[in-house]
Amino acid sequence: MRGEAITAGMTTDPVPWRATVLTLYPEMFPGPLGLSLSGDALARGAWDLEARNIRAHGIGRHRSVDDTPAGGGAGMVLRCDVLAAAIDAAAPADDPRPRLLMSPRGRPLTQGRVRALAEGPGLIAVCGRFEGVDERVIAARGLEEVSIGDYVLSGGEMAALVLLDACVRLLPGTMGKMASGEEESFEGGLLEYPHYTRPREWEGRAIPEVLNGGNHGAIARWRRAEAERLTAERRPDLIAARGRES
Amino acid sequence: MRGEAITAGMTTDPVPWRATVLTLYPEMFPGPLGLSLSGDALARGAWDLEARNIRAHGIGRHRSVDDTPAGGGAGMVLRCDVLAAAIDAAAPADDPRPRLLMSPRGRPLTQGRVRALAEGPGLIAVCGRFEGVDERVIAARGLEEVSIGDYVLSGGEMAALVLLDACVRLLPGTMGKMASGEEESFEGGLLEYPHYTRPREWEGRAIPEVLNGGNHGAIARWRRAEAERLTAERRPDLIAARGRES
Repeated sequence: MRGEAITAGMTTDPVPWRATVLTLYPEMFPGPLGLSLSGDALARGAWDLEARNIRAHGIGRHRSVDDTPAGGGAGMVLRCDVLAAAIDAAAPADDPRPRLLMSPRGRPLTQGRVRALAEGPGLIAVCGRFEGVDERVIAARGLEEVSIGDYVLSGGEMAALVLLDACVRLLPGTMGKMASGEEESFEGGLLEYPHYTRPREWEGRAIPEVLNGGNHGAIARWRRAEAERLTAERRPDLIAARGRES
Repeated sequence: MRGEAITAGMTTDPVPWRATVLTLYPEMFPGPLGLSLSGDALARGAWDLEARNIRAHGIGRHRSVDDTPAGGGAGMVLRCDVLAAAIDAAAPADDPRPRLLMSPRGRPLTQGRVRALAEGPGLIAVCGRFEGVDERVIAARGLEEVSIGDYVLSGGEMAALVLLDACVRLLPGTMGKMASGEEESFEGGLLEYPHYTRPREWEGRAIPEVLNGGNHGAIARWRRAEAERLTAERRPDLIAARGRES
């Protein structure tokens, strides 16, 4: 099927990057992803977004999706049988897309992981709510827990929006005339150097002289040194991680 | 003004937690924050959200907000004079709210910082776009750079949505009958223990026996041990950080 659609002269992949989100709030999608660069790319068919309501697989007349925690405690837990049914309906067993569970217990999201996801066929994002999801469905359906940061959200939806935004901007053509992503934050294990633009002087603050000189070698050296300095000051952990990975 | 509105018998603060977002995409707000718990709290007046368009302070007939980077390079940079005018119009100098710039170069957001922000009067979130903002406005207007994680987004808007979601769920009354947040992920420097709910057996997988027994001491010990085990396995960095902070 994929091959049939390719004709001479077409330069874009006819099979879009596909995202499926499982959520109790499908109306949150595309939300902010429907605007700006990601919205343009969605309208152009460069990617595809399907938000599916977990509640469609709820139990009984009230489509119940949660129950009280085994062993007691506050809050409610998303049922494994309900979530498994939602996953099975959304993705056949041979669907090649990674199945991600947005969770503060997960592996921290990195730009490297974002790039790998953007280069793949798409992703399935499962959004938890309440206290969490029944642990058994994670292993039974091969969910990979992903965390966008060390803080607690009201649900996985905001995390899925962030993950999708980060991936979609890397899809071919999405950024248009903007940077290719090659020089950006984290790509070299460094924070980005400071930016300046007109006016040359503002409220008594001038643009650093080297940036006005047109000496491209000196500018590149200054930017590299600033990126190194900022990273060392603010995020020594990134420099340590770079050492371990290389 | 604040005092006048307090009358006997009122238990909630009549001055809501106030968020102001400066953005080129005000239509992204409240977006997903208008739904679920945060949306209920917004409708109830427990918090207040104002999204202001930076472009209103743009220059000339085309309301230009950006220009090419000094020293060359890809992309565009948000002008310091435009952003400063937007900030000055949104927040008088004596506005006690912290001024946050959503930026991958910022200090990583933590649950502790979220809690501190939720306990304060609110916040001002500045959303960058393009390659970044002119560095001079950060110092000139006392912006605190905050990062939600080590990945690159198409703009600061998604980061602001995440930050606001994390804060708003901690406002008094927002979580309703849900957990108070006391026992949650990161609050004790640990990842959360696994959750289970009915059915007791599913696809050959049983709920751990201790959770069915009703021995509250044993359940608490099991949960603590699981949280310690998961954190040691997945996030030894959190345990190291806990040691440094205490």
